[in-house]
Amino acid sequence: MVNIAILGFGTVGSGVAEVLAKNSAHIDQKVETPVRLKYILDVRDFPDNPFGDKIIHDFATIENDPEVDIVVETIGGAGVALDFTRRALSAGKSVVSSNKELVAEHGCELLQLAARKGASYLFEASVGGGIPILRPLSQCLAANELTEVCGILNGTTNYILTRMIRAGLSFDAALREAQANGYAEADPTADVEGHDACRKICILAAIAFGRHIYPRQVPTEGITGVTLADVAYAESCNKKIKLLGRAIRQDDGRICAYVAPHLLDGENPLSGVEDVFNAITVKGDAIGDVMFYGRGAGKLPTASAVVADVMDAARHIKSRKRVEWGPGGEDVTVSPERLETAWYVRAKGRVDAVRAGFPGVALLSRSGAPAEEVAFLTPVMTGAEVLERLGALEPQSLFRVLD
Amino acid sequence: MVNIAILGFGTVGSGVAEVLAKNSAHIDQKVETPVRLKYILDVRDFPDNPFGDKIIHDFATIENDPEVDIVVETIGGAGVALDFTRRALSAGKSVVSSNKELVAEHGCELLQLAARKGASYLFEASVGGGIPILRPLSQCLAANELTEVCGILNGTTNYILTRMIRAGLSFDAALREAQANGYAEADPTADVEGHDACRKICILAAIAFGRHIYPRQVPTEGITGVTLADVAYAESCNKKIKLLGRAIRQDDGRICAYVAPHLLDGENPLSGVEDVFNAITVKGDAIGDVMFYGRGAGKLPTASAVVADVMDAARHIKSRKRVEWGPGGEDVTVSPERLETAWYVRAKGRVDAVRAGFPGVALLSRSGAPAEEVAFLTPVMTGAEVLERLGALEPQSLFRVLD
Repeated sequence: MVNIAILGFGTVGSGVAEVLAKNSAHIDQKVETPVRLKYILDVRDFPDNPFGDKIIHDFATIENDPEVDIVVETIGGAGVALDFTRRALSAGKSVVSSNKELVAEHGCELLQLAARKGASYLFEASVGGGIPILRPLSQCLAANELTEVCGILNGTTNYILTRMIRAGLSFDAALREAQANGYAEADPTADVEGHDACRKICILAAIAFGRHIYPRQVPTEGITGVTLADVAYAESCNKKIKLLGRAIRQDDGRICAYVAPHLLDGENPLSGVEDVFNAITVKGDAIGDVMFYGRGAGKLPTASAVVADVMDAARHIKSRKRVEWGPGGEDVTVSPERLETAWYVRAKGRVDAVRAGFPGVALLSRSGAPAEEVAFLTPVMTGAEVLERLGALEPQSLFRVLD
Repeated sequence: MVNIAILGFGTVGSGVAEVLAKNSAHIDQKVETPVRLKYILDVRDFPDNPFGDKIIHDFATIENDPEVDIVVETIGGAGVALDFTRRALSAGKSVVSSNKELVAEHGCELLQLAARKGASYLFEASVGGGIPILRPLSQCLAANELTEVCGILNGTTNYILTRMIRAGLSFDAALREAQANGYAEADPTADVEGHDACRKICILAAIAFGRHIYPRQVPTEGITGVTLADVAYAESCNKKIKLLGRAIRQDDGRICAYVAPHLLDGENPLSGVEDVFNAITVKGDAIGDVMFYGRGAGKLPTASAVVADVMDAARHIKSRKRVEWGPGGEDVTVSPERLETAWYVRAKGRVDAVRAGFPGVALLSRSGAPAEEVAFLTPVMTGAEVLERLGALEPQSLFRVLD
């Protein structure tokens, strides 16, 4: 018998309770012991809910109950969730989490604490919702020296960009539609400014490259600056605008990680990832490119990833699962400033200035472009070099271009 | 210290030796003990090869050496490979294999033998080359009741179809090109007739649904009947022809598995999988659709999947990894005859006959079509119903259509 406590009865927490109940026979058979939901911690009561009788309000009940083997943390944030996670691990209980903010900020510390206490700390659901990515990254691709992880990591922004591209909606209109459909929150800042994608690329990079990377070390640009003009220019050269999180291992072992909109070639498998779907590509020395694709959010996909971790932790109650990475530090990362790529430039100015700064580039065109608007793709160079060569051109949009 | 023996020094076997050597430091650190290649079994000698001093010719040396912990079987086929695998497992050694034919025919027996002997039998590389799919299927998606596994499982046929679609090559010309590029063997039967894809869908279905399914239970149609006329008609309705292996769980728990060419809608993520790439989609009750994409073959991708299994087996020398499924039987599968889908029909005959048998369907068109050639998509029905309704129409191509 393995006993579970869920912290937080919101969307993901209630989804976990549902999946545990619905697939109970299947889960018990796979784990080879009954898996029982014992407590749900929430500040609210849910008298009419089928799981209402599991609700408690005091974390100490869970912390002090030796029968509780696994704590599922779906509270979110790095406040009380951090306190409860530390206390659960200190009590020798394994913790399964969908909390990307907590893992991105405190993952290294919590993994070390889990190791000392002989417990597991697992968080497959924190990246890519239901897409299995963290475990394949740490296990199946273990024989590879990984060189890059790159992905469409946020379903809300991908939905907004898809609607801008397909339906010609402005950013504001697409955002309102996403909110109406429940794909974006009332305060969409964490999504549209790229903070959510930033936390996820931090976690992916830590697993791929073995060192903690803090969100503050990852320059992050969201999609609020993407206009329909940019969408039209991208289409004119068979490219799509996507918000990517990237982490690239440099030859000196340091990691260059950032989040920004990119123009992706139509042949790139990530360019076909539409709506709320997420996808993550991994490059390894032996394997080449591998891609993982699926729903990056949503109650049941995320809950199914949490429950898979619960099952894994339950099977390893006596022999902890090893997922680990080393501590972070300023020397771990390097700024993307030195990373050379092609660039898409949209600017106010004259064609002469383009010819002077970027000899030989082809101008892009779109219908309805105002006079004195120019757009083009540069050769491969740093962002600083682009800015230097712009001269009298006044940049409006500046995005990296990937094949 | 963990000692490895490789059986068969062909493409995959030599790739495994290379990956083990090249990433040795990284591998030893992850496994937390040195992983050493002790023997390579082959009938040939390789005096000038850097691994030439490991070559031996007698399997008994490996079988009787208590230092050998893990045997890597890259011989292929179900002859001597079966004998050596049985003997290695019987001696308590774990076996890692890339041999899809052996797993598809004898997987259940070999897994049971491994379980009795406290050894692991792992074969991630047998499906999808370097794409991590079997472990995510059994672990990460464990919380789901899976309903379907479907994929582009053979790189050779996908390359041929891509060249027919993109370059307008005939099947024969595309096959010759694939052979010239090393993507198809001199005898391409196992690929172009679908046998290779058939073995892979058997393995995927066994892991997803828990019962052994024999290749002879899986109706298999290859791509030799696909013509440029079919490619053109598919294009005219924004679809692509792809060879799919599918395994679908029926409501009564039985499995409907088959391999055949399909017309896939342009919106289907599998439709964008080109050249030698493979991709596998998995449907679960909680997770929705998830897709895994990458190089399905090739020396280093396949070798990296083998080495990941070796590392996993090495970490679990004392506590066997559990991958298991139940025995097969005639009652496990159900014929795809009863599976209803839309169909693509190309036939000799008159439009009147189409109107009579399939009232209301739209005719497809292509340039250069001979007189008395008709093509159309049917409503959802069984294959038998399509044949019955054809009447005087003489069918030339009949492929299922998926959204």
